[in-house]
Amino acid sequence: MPYFDAASAAPLHPVARQALSAALDDGWADPGRLYREGRKARMLLDAAREAAAEAVGCRADELVFTPSGTRAVHTGVAGALAGRRRVGRHLIVSAVEHSSVLHSAEVAEAAGGTVSRVGVDRAGAVDPAGYAAALRADTALAVLQSANHEVGTVQPVAEVAGICRAAGVPLLVDAAQSLGWGPVEGDWSLLAASAHKWGGPAGVGLLAVRKGVRFAAQGPVDERESGRAPGFENIPAVVAAAASLRAVRAEAAREAERLRELTARIRARVPELVPDVEVVGDAGRRLPGIVTFSCLYVDGEALLHELDRAGFSVSSGSSCTSSTLTPSHVLKAMGVLSEGNVRVSLPAGTAEADVERFLAVLPGAVAGVREKLGAPVPAAVVTAEDALVVDALGRRCPIPVIELARVFPGVPVGGTVRVLSDDEAARLDIPAWCEMRGQEYLGEEPAERGTAYLVRRLG
Amino acid sequence: MPYFDAASAAPLHPVARQALSAALDDGWADPGRLYREGRKARMLLDAAREAAAEAVGCRADELVFTPSGTRAVHTGVAGALAGRRRVGRHLIVSAVEHSSVLHSAEVAEAAGGTVSRVGVDRAGAVDPAGYAAALRADTALAVLQSANHEVGTVQPVAEVAGICRAAGVPLLVDAAQSLGWGPVEGDWSLLAASAHKWGGPAGVGLLAVRKGVRFAAQGPVDERESGRAPGFENIPAVVAAAASLRAVRAEAAREAERLRELTARIRARVPELVPDVEVVGDAGRRLPGIVTFSCLYVDGEALLHELDRAGFSVSSGSSCTSSTLTPSHVLKAMGVLSEGNVRVSLPAGTAEADVERFLAVLPGAVAGVREKLGAPVPAAVVTAEDALVVDALGRRCPIPVIELARVFPGVPVGGTVRVLSDDEAARLDIPAWCEMRGQEYLGEEPAERGTAYLVRRLG
Repeated sequence: MPYFDAASAAPLHPVARQALSAALDDGWADPGRLYREGRKARMLLDAAREAAAEAVGCRADELVFTPSGTRAVHTGVAGALAGRRRVGRHLIVSAVEHSSVLHSAEVAEAAGGTVSRVGVDRAGAVDPAGYAAALRADTALAVLQSANHEVGTVQPVAEVAGICRAAGVPLLVDAAQSLGWGPVEGDWSLLAASAHKWGGPAGVGLLAVRKGVRFAAQGPVDERESGRAPGFENIPAVVAAAASLRAVRAEAAREAERLRELTARIRARVPELVPDVEVVGDAGRRLPGIVTFSCLYVDGEALLHELDRAGFSVSSGSSCTSSTLTPSHVLKAMGVLSEGNVRVSLPAGTAEADVERFLAVLPGAVAGVREKLGAPVPAAVVTAEDALVVDALGRRCPIPVIELARVFPGVPVGGTVRVLSDDEAARLDIPAWCEMRGQEYLGEEPAERGTAYLVRRLG
Repeated sequence: MPYFDAASAAPLHPVARQALSAALDDGWADPGRLYREGRKARMLLDAAREAAAEAVGCRADELVFTPSGTRAVHTGVAGALAGRRRVGRHLIVSAVEHSSVLHSAEVAEAAGGTVSRVGVDRAGAVDPAGYAAALRADTALAVLQSANHEVGTVQPVAEVAGICRAAGVPLLVDAAQSLGWGPVEGDWSLLAASAHKWGGPAGVGLLAVRKGVRFAAQGPVDERESGRAPGFENIPAVVAAAASLRAVRAEAAREAERLRELTARIRARVPELVPDVEVVGDAGRRLPGIVTFSCLYVDGEALLHELDRAGFSVSSGSSCTSSTLTPSHVLKAMGVLSEGNVRVSLPAGTAEADVERFLAVLPGAVAGVREKLGAPVPAAVVTAEDALVVDALGRRCPIPVIELARVFPGVPVGGTVRVLSDDEAARLDIPAWCEMRGQEYLGEEPAERGTAYLVRRLG
């Protein structure tokens, strides 16, 4: 049963399991104590920190273990902002960061800070010039992911780090998706990561803060982990995290090449096999194991369900699958189609045969969902003075786009269609449909109910 | 090699190890996902929550898992204070709470709140009337431990909860030391605990918040664990925590009786075997496994070292053993001797023979440390107009008390001794020595350097 959602959580690496099991015997005591059980625990913790620091490319005393990658980001952003409060309260993030970064930015804003969100191109990459333009005299911190978690696009971290360094602004890199593949290049100041993304256990994040970076940990004082991660150390998990990081790094070069070939195959074949598909993310500068595409006229949740029934576990940035009902902020920032979105993220060791089977199953799964969605009663179509009106009020994604596509053949070239919708996803998907179909998107305007999206037929 | 520091961290219970191992296979995926690996993880998490809630005595939807007991306390205090900000910003804690509570209180104070610290009696217990007296119209929250972590004294939680309930103030109970022994009685509003204290794995705390308690989680938004514990869930550890809590509860009644007899034996025998010892904590209302005593003229760190060499792992609230250099705030609040302090906390399953061996080894260990400490050059003794002066400036605990005891036989009845010391521990230990020796402590006054402590010889 192939699991293709490694970007959410990778299955536990065998080395992590072994190390965890061994460390349960020797690493349960309080490493702050002076007796033998405490000294054993301290030795394991110190060794794990040395190993993790080597893999990160920092000094051991610059690295602390946190309970998760999310907590590493929360702590890192809050601590770096507080440490540079005298400089100012301006924060720079990209528009496609992980939610832990964006929610940290919201906290900073609520506390009176200001946030600049640097946009991305259609492939999901930031332009270093965007960071350069966002820098201000009162910028306390900039944050950039090493690679995007939804589409796999690798960010120009080294360039952005150089620009920040020249301006005297620390850069925090969220390396959650890439640390298993290699160290983050460039002159970064802080780095956050998460062990369960590389095959380590849950319950372990990393936060590295370079010497010389002003940092003021927030929240109640606690002496553990240099005062940056309160609470009793989870040493067995930390040991497993460090051991598995070394193990995946040893296999990284070969495995990256293998997975890159498999994802390249998916990138090439899906558009051949499935009509009306958009593969998103950068074709070249991308993580080895992630490939993401969106299928027009498809409800993402229904498609995931079909694929699960066929034995494939994949994820989606579509509005309909996550527990929140807003479309993926990543796809939105990229300006690409969000409906029928599928992220395939291959764990290390994925068999070629499983990828082939996925490619064999996908076309039928998409066709099945489209067939079901094609069935609903057509929306009311009325001719107004100068535009055809599609009333899709109260209908959820992807129905508004399906209705638009249905009436379109009846629109004369040069004529316009006005789609009324109150689904937030339409704001993203109607322009994306226009782009895919070579039609002109004229913009949106408030309607009596919902929003009217205007489309002109070019051919 | 007997380990007698269960109050710091209990060795992993066999059931915890089994459950952890099994859950590593089925509980590594994201429980928020809809595919089969996610559904399995969700089922494990839900079942663990049900089991833990039953043991706590709350509803499953009132309980979240946090990365540690410390984080449960931090989150609980901050969330409850924020939830009742409109009522006021007054917080009540006892003077003998765990550092996670006291440091949370400091944060509340730094943010403009006020904190009342309710004192304890010489046994370490709060008086419910102390909480009643501290309640104000603007009290947002009260916090009380179920039992003290350093001396084992059980607190009158049910009475304090009743008083708080009558005043409409929520009570947060820190149940870290007692939850393995049984549920917390009384009408509490919030409860925090820590799995590694009952033989569960590190990396798991519990926070229960009763329905109807106003609670506003602080920090960046995160959808996991009802928005109260950000970051990817550590399901294998959570499953192990819940399973081991059930297991220790099943054994609790019998094991409590057995350990209580063993600690009663230590309480009775240590003062017979070792001269100048004060056993501290309540003789009756106490946890089954904890017994604490202080040895006059002993450096706690040196004694722990001796005991470690003899094969016994114990802990100490003395100034000299923890990584901070201040004496235990618990012993200080109780007004008992802090020097040469030893906490013996027996894990479940402790063999009677090991306790007997400890009692056999202890007198020699204490005598050895005292002999070494008796050796230093006597402090300068000069006769002032009306008092003998002992200059112990620059000398660390327990030297000031040793020097006081040395000169005392030469002081006429009715005469006074003035001990000059700049060690913070003297403020606690000189009055405690007077109490133990039946001499009169006259008080302290600032000296040219350090502080002068005045003692009058009564007999």
